[in-house]
Amino acid sequence: MEFKHTLPIQLRFNDVDKFGHVNNSVYFTFYDLGKTTYIADIMRLFKLEDQTTAIVVVNINANFLAPVYANEHVAVQTATLEVGYKSFTLFQQLIDTDTKEVKCTCSSVMVAFDVKSQQGVPISSEWKEAFCQYEGKDIIRKE
Amino acid sequence: MEFKHTLPIQLRFNDVDKFGHVNNSVYFTFYDLGKTTYIADIMRLFKLEDQTTAIVVVNINANFLAPVYANEHVAVQTATLEVGYKSFTLFQQLIDTDTKEVKCTCSSVMVAFDVKSQQGVPISSEWKEAFCQYEGKDIIRKE
Amino acid sequence: MEFKHTLPIQLRFNDVDKFGHVNNSVYFTFYDLGKTTYIADIMRLFKLEDQTTAIVVVNINANFLAPVYANEHVAVQTATLEVGYKSFTLFQQLIDTDTKEVKCTCSSVMVAFDVKSQQGVPISSEWKEAFCQYEGKDIIRKE
Amino acid sequence: MEFKHTLPIQLRFNDVDKFGHVNNSVYFTFYDLGKTTYIADIMRLFKLEDQTTAIVVVNINANFLAPVYANEHVAVQTATLEVGYKSFTLFQQLIDTDTKEVKCTCSSVMVAFDVKSQQGVPISSEWKEAFCQYEGKDIIRKE
Repeated sequence: MEFKHTLPIQLRFNDVDKFGHVNNSVYFTFYDLGKTTYIADIMRLFKLEDQTTAIVVVNINANFLAPVYANEHVAVQTATLEVGYKSFTLFQQLIDTDTKEVKCTCSSVMVAFDVKSQQGVPISSEWKEAFCQYEGKDIIRKE
Repeated sequence: MEFKHTLPIQLRFNDVDKFGHVNNSVYFTFYDLGKTTYIADIMRLFKLEDQTTAIVVVNINANFLAPVYANEHVAVQTATLEVGYKSFTLFQQLIDTDTKEVKCTCSSVMVAFDVKSQQGVPISSEWKEAFCQYEGKDIIRKE
Repeated sequence: MEFKHTLPIQLRFNDVDKFGHVNNSVYFTFYDLGKTTYIADIMRLFKLEDQTTAIVVVNINANFLAPVYANEHVAVQTATLEVGYKSFTLFQQLIDTDTKEVKCTCSSVMVAFDVKSQQGVPISSEWKEAFCQYEGKDIIRKE
Repeated sequence: MEFKHTLPIQLRFNDVDKFGHVNNSVYFTFYDLGKTTYIADIMRLFKLEDQTTAIVVVNINANFLAPVYANEHVAVQTATLEVGYKSFTLFQQLIDTDTKEVKCTCSSVMVAFDVKSQQGVPISSEWKEAFCQYEGKDIIRKE
């Protein structure tokens, strides 16, 4: 799989647990950072306004493939897999930037909802267009 | 679903993000704590020795159902769903202890491996027995 | 020194660093929790309203006396040392609740400021009175 | 004050509290990272071996001058203020790298101790020399 978006992650001393591994729970803060910069980059590139719509995660599914050690250099890669009516799916992986080893993969189902009504709202056509253009392919879900 | 193991969680000030919600990433530190106390309780109850076997998470699948607010009281509930040859599956949920509302559910596939050889090892019959007795039912996977 | 306020702390798996010690940085999240519950308890006991005044930390001075290990039970103790015109000083310690060993001490200078004007404001007489009554002695700074 | 060592910090989504500020407690993880990279840089530059000596923090004194917001770019600057017989003092500040505003200053007293005996040990002359050369001035404490 090809990724257009790669964010190097600065590890912190207390990311590492007593086994010398970066704690699994901390990976999700890396994925969070990947998601927010990915979305921000698309908004900036396609001049999408920061509206009254918030994006929340409803499902996360992560596979832990290999431990990350304190002295390794890692990055989070993020891509949109599919855009549906009210949700879209991001696929992310945590890689060792030196060896390209994939340490962990994670898919996240994201939902747009209206901040005022707290209700899910359809993904706008501008957003759908932006996702497809950024990823360079048609990723609209065929219902 | 019934849970034999419930661990109240002490929320910290910096668990809460700028939206006033407990950050989703932090949930996984709660689930971690649930897992380690659940395993420790079973080891203590069934006098299982802390051997040269480590337990690692290989997959996490979480559904975020409702936000947790800073002033809410929450607990993690943990149960073993199924025990297989070299892995077992834990099911957990994060609940509001006052309203019993389920905020998030999470299933985790755990694998036993030998610390020296760093290879996966079969779940011992003592462990299988302990899981079944603790949960009060036969949860051995029928292969 | 005597403390009227003791808050047991629930340690988390990833509080512990690769040396098996609770990471020093994490202590400050414990002290934060001690501060917020201490202030909340005083506000509740003395029916002080949550006004337009925020309290911020301007100085922290901590002495690390002994490491905290993953399996220890700890608590944060909090007391007000002194109340001045626009600031007050909290003294806290992190103790092993089993052995009463003091692991770390911390004094914090806190300042009240108006949320709207973002200016420091005098500590009200109701607050001064509440601090003295809670601590059971006159802790008003003599200027 | 001049600093030879500046480390840009990557902020994370959950560093930010409900007021939109980077939580004060998190600053200490930034300072930790500044300390460890500062020490590692000196060890590498002066070919100091990673011996059986550990370095621990015994005192931290921090002044919080201005809040850090989620969208700001920050860095930690680190310098050695003074090297004594068995301890040395680091001075650090957290700055906005765009405006150069100092957000927080922090001095830390560090002690070298022998990992085996768990006793404090004198700072070696190689280390003292390295600190002075790195900082470009004589910072040996005159006792």
